[in-house]
Amino acid sequence: MFRLYYAPSTCALATHIALEEAGAPYEAVLVDFSSQSQRSPEYLAINPKGRVPALVTESGTLTETPALLCFVAQRFPKAELAPFADPFALAQVQEFNSYLCSTVHVAHAHRVRGTRWADDPAAIEAMKRKVPSNVTECFALIEHKLLKGPWVMGNDYTICDAYLFTIASWVEADGVDTTELPRIREHRTRMLARPAVQKAVAAEGTQIG
Amino acid sequence: MFRLYYAPSTCALATHIALEEAGAPYEAVLVDFSSQSQRSPEYLAINPKGRVPALVTESGTLTETPALLCFVAQRFPKAELAPFADPFALAQVQEFNSYLCSTVHVAHAHRVRGTRWADDPAAIEAMKRKVPSNVTECFALIEHKLLKGPWVMGNDYTICDAYLFTIASWVEADGVDTTELPRIREHRTRMLARPAVQKAVAAEGTQIG
Repeated sequence: MFRLYYAPSTCALATHIALEEAGAPYEAVLVDFSSQSQRSPEYLAINPKGRVPALVTESGTLTETPALLCFVAQRFPKAELAPFADPFALAQVQEFNSYLCSTVHVAHAHRVRGTRWADDPAAIEAMKRKVPSNVTECFALIEHKLLKGPWVMGNDYTICDAYLFTIASWVEADGVDTTELPRIREHRTRMLARPAVQKAVAAEGTQIG
Repeated sequence: MFRLYYAPSTCALATHIALEEAGAPYEAVLVDFSSQSQRSPEYLAINPKGRVPALVTESGTLTETPALLCFVAQRFPKAELAPFADPFALAQVQEFNSYLCSTVHVAHAHRVRGTRWADDPAAIEAMKRKVPSNVTECFALIEHKLLKGPWVMGNDYTICDAYLFTIASWVEADGVDTTELPRIREHRTRMLARPAVQKAVAAEGTQIG
């Protein structure tokens, strides 16, 4: 039985969805950000980075969403959540997920976690002002170039879809005009029709959009 | 014959090293940042993100360092650069590389690429001021928790080593006190003794440290 440490409205939702899609045995454990539980000694013993998600497995604890997604896909191959037999196709999955974690999530985080990168309140406000245009630029690239359709990688549903759905659930709050993103909105609708997605979203009580 | 698009002193060095370690057939193509070539129509046709690295392969073009590293490791299995047969071990490799791309590289980038996240010059200066403490915090975690030794993953040299070596080559300029990082300095020395590393570093003319 795995344990997924999560908080609502974070990127942990992507792994939560993947675990459901894979039919993995797991329990979801809430980390209460409102009481700063992610900084408690108990949680730092699980994940010294003080963030979610963290996944406790039979072999040890893993963090970082792209790693967790790949782990779930490879550990539960029957679900066919990633093309492990094809190096180029797998690299395309990794490429998409790396872009989400290193550029898109980071662009978003400057609205809500600016204190990570500056102490000056005016600088934190300056970062917030640039979030709508930065996140819009990222999602324009996804809309027009990266999202093959109907799923991210084309006809095959993969771990990329869980991750895109999760990060895209923040765009309205980030100030993005979603009328310019019809394909990403269709992707959200398509995702919300999947039982695994419904179950993970309901379990977290996460707001989508 | 692959083509690796790179610029000196960027994270492209990690893939450059991995290609050398793998004995892959490739040529390295310089993208001249001083003339903003990464924003030229010709380069944007190769990589619409306008960044390096990009790797043109027989199957198409790939970007994002963690994806390129995994691709090289899986495509050239004899080099044994990643533990593809073991889902947990492979996830540990991905976890480390994801941390480098989404947190450590990003912490560094606020010194040299602050205009990505704010327009106000005072805000950009405020970001720069926080870089030494942020990058120090990242590397303290690597020094004390993540780097198993002698290589990142322990006894086996992997793609994580090429990536750590690359990002760690920026820490002096980021204002980090490396006397607190003896294990990371030893790792650098160990890397510089490898012919593949020497060849990639020399080809790029990259300064280490």
